[in-house]
Amino acid sequence: MESATDLTSLERVLPPGVVIQDETRKSAYRWDRANDPEAGMPLAVVRVTSTEDVQAVVRFAAAHNLAVIPRGAGSGLSGGASALDGCIMISLENMRAIDIDPVTRTAVVGPGVLNAELKAAAAEHRLWYPPDPSSYEICSIGGNVATNAGGLCCVKYGVTTDYVLGLTVVLADGTAVNLGGARLKDVAGLSMTKLFVGSEGTLGVITEVILRLVPAQRPPATLVATFASLGGATNAVLQITRRMRPSMLEFMDKASINAVEDLLTMGLDRDAEGMLIVQSDEALGHSAVEIAEIMEICQTNGATEAFSTDDEETGEAFVHARRMAIPAVERKGSLLLEDVGVPLTQLGALVQGIEQISARRDIVIPVIAHAGDGNTHPLIVFNPMDADSKARAHLAYGEVMELAIALGGTITGEHGVGRLKKPWLGDYLGADVLALNQRIKDALDPQGILNPGAVF
Amino acid sequence: MESATDLTSLERVLPPGVVIQDETRKSAYRWDRANDPEAGMPLAVVRVTSTEDVQAVVRFAAAHNLAVIPRGAGSGLSGGASALDGCIMISLENMRAIDIDPVTRTAVVGPGVLNAELKAAAAEHRLWYPPDPSSYEICSIGGNVATNAGGLCCVKYGVTTDYVLGLTVVLADGTAVNLGGARLKDVAGLSMTKLFVGSEGTLGVITEVILRLVPAQRPPATLVATFASLGGATNAVLQITRRMRPSMLEFMDKASINAVEDLLTMGLDRDAEGMLIVQSDEALGHSAVEIAEIMEICQTNGATEAFSTDDEETGEAFVHARRMAIPAVERKGSLLLEDVGVPLTQLGALVQGIEQISARRDIVIPVIAHAGDGNTHPLIVFNPMDADSKARAHLAYGEVMELAIALGGTITGEHGVGRLKKPWLGDYLGADVLALNQRIKDALDPQGILNPGAVF
Repeated sequence: MESATDLTSLERVLPPGVVIQDETRKSAYRWDRANDPEAGMPLAVVRVTSTEDVQAVVRFAAAHNLAVIPRGAGSGLSGGASALDGCIMISLENMRAIDIDPVTRTAVVGPGVLNAELKAAAAEHRLWYPPDPSSYEICSIGGNVATNAGGLCCVKYGVTTDYVLGLTVVLADGTAVNLGGARLKDVAGLSMTKLFVGSEGTLGVITEVILRLVPAQRPPATLVATFASLGGATNAVLQITRRMRPSMLEFMDKASINAVEDLLTMGLDRDAEGMLIVQSDEALGHSAVEIAEIMEICQTNGATEAFSTDDEETGEAFVHARRMAIPAVERKGSLLLEDVGVPLTQLGALVQGIEQISARRDIVIPVIAHAGDGNTHPLIVFNPMDADSKARAHLAYGEVMELAIALGGTITGEHGVGRLKKPWLGDYLGADVLALNQRIKDALDPQGILNPGAVF
Repeated sequence: MESATDLTSLERVLPPGVVIQDETRKSAYRWDRANDPEAGMPLAVVRVTSTEDVQAVVRFAAAHNLAVIPRGAGSGLSGGASALDGCIMISLENMRAIDIDPVTRTAVVGPGVLNAELKAAAAEHRLWYPPDPSSYEICSIGGNVATNAGGLCCVKYGVTTDYVLGLTVVLADGTAVNLGGARLKDVAGLSMTKLFVGSEGTLGVITEVILRLVPAQRPPATLVATFASLGGATNAVLQITRRMRPSMLEFMDKASINAVEDLLTMGLDRDAEGMLIVQSDEALGHSAVEIAEIMEICQTNGATEAFSTDDEETGEAFVHARRMAIPAVERKGSLLLEDVGVPLTQLGALVQGIEQISARRDIVIPVIAHAGDGNTHPLIVFNPMDADSKARAHLAYGEVMELAIALGGTITGEHGVGRLKKPWLGDYLGADVLALNQRIKDALDPQGILNPGAVF
């Protein structure tokens, strides 16, 4: 399906060297971390340097009816940035400016800036950009905005959309618009900024982001507790969130505890059915009070071991264990990384249902969760060399989403729909809401050139 | 322009008594609190009781090409719920169910529920719904969602959109859709819930709202400080927000201080150029630490008087003074209530520029502000019996918005565009963003029956 489109006229209006047509170099841009087996080969990859570059590419694509796929750091887990044959891949990796205004506590950043880079730049001013996907060291702000990414501190501090004050977006006809701005309240016109957050490149290409920052986080106190029963752990979660707002409330099931223990040998309890990692960043003194209250809740709910610390470094070691869960499980095989969410009361039912799917499909599925948000990441492990294992994993992948829907949950809490989850979107949203989404898509991208095949 | 449409077929499918055609009773629904002099007379007011009622009305309106105007409590300040001649006014005042789930900390409420009613119902479970427009005792949740309303605690706790997890909306063709749900993270499909928040009845009629609640607020400590110079007050605001997150950070200028003192005789400093009312709701003990730090900032910036208290009731008296500013100024004449916002660094320039407009137009314009958000409410006072005073007030109203735009600000921070601010929307957004808004509107309401004349 290779297109014969001549790129000379595009190259002429772009800076030298940004258009990549070499097959080997292009290949590096075919996949994001979803490793979509159906990823195609781009006609070209354009490593844009400015909003004007993006406008030129989109205008060229519109004129030649080519698909345009925006790509940040390529760390997406739903295949939202998989290449299509003959597409133009817009890589935003070189748009990396960071401009922080400590007085208004805002940052103006390029979409290619890594989440960790922004955090570091903000920290120099004693400021903080809260959203913290586990991949924060390798994921880009543009991708975070495109997927409305979450993370670990969202349970108290919200998700990406809560920090986006403004966007520059190149629309499907090449027009660049500035939406919102460095104003904390603004209700003039429709909530366009919010509409583009989470639109996964299907409505426009984000070329600049204005973000709200907050004062630096206080050093947190940390608690780790293990439970002999799943119900003990999930009841503790409900009782904690009922009364207070911890800054982190993570869950690991038995399989993920064991995978981490295999890798790190920290002395984690291999027999525990669940482990909670909780942090409080309340004011000094009060964080310890809050953690003590959480300790009591854990003990009331049958915690077998519970340990708390005011020491930041010791606490960080346990958070590290949680963050290492995915790499640890990856040692067991290839992963289909799920992202289903349920109302908090259904968390236990979801984890139990996943166990049943795991048993039925004979596939290992360790579960980690942003428990305080009801957002879980079942890690479906398969052997990529074994067609049957792979097939069973893919069946399980769908069954986990169907289970989440049946429990009143969502098919994706923070990773996005991309190409991998699209087959389940209609079942989740229902025909009327899907049609409503499609009307917005058609109004903003009538030609259908923006990230075709993702979401829609 | 009275329509001769026969409402019999509509009445037949609705509960008895909900369709009001009596002229006197209909008249009560012609105006919201913007008192738009151009408000028309509805063909009928329908006091709906369910989503199905709303569907029936919208289908009838679509079939007869009638304008549909949704109305909550009628407390809007931008004329978003002014009647048009021959329209059907949908009053949501009787949809008042409140269902709180303390375990998941969510509330499912009818759009007619008053903000204060929800706060009270949440408090019974030791929970809190933060958004707090000054009108919270008389404004409805549906109206809050339709305008993305703000308030005083937004500086720390965000605005309405930050608490909306889901909506039931009746679309322009009468279809009812459920958007989002009681899930804390959900990125499946476009951010449709967010798009409807702040859409001012132009995209659909909101018939149910699912809201996120948080644990009850801690009793705040309060500080009041007066300043001999405006610059002292605005510099203090910048230094406070630079370092911490107070739960309230309000400003009153000299004219509003004096108006409140006229009404309440509290002993406020009539010579002060500005007054700040600040609260901290950090954990017990730490709120006093934070307030002490704020005290120091105020004194460094030349505060002439500064007073702080841990006592909730004493603090509430000062917040009451701030809340009474609008009623106090209303005693001086009729009001055009402005709502412009600027980046925080421009707050002083905005207040000074408003003083100049006030002098040039010979119109009193006291200014109160949610200073921590850069969101101000200039209160343009005029004599409704004096045509010239009224004309000058309207000129000033526009000039204040033009000033805000010139300072990088917005024409409306939390009240909405409605009908009164529509003439300035294009200047603020620019042609391309206005066109983008219009494309969404046309896609969702091709017939243009939903709240015509508001925003668009």
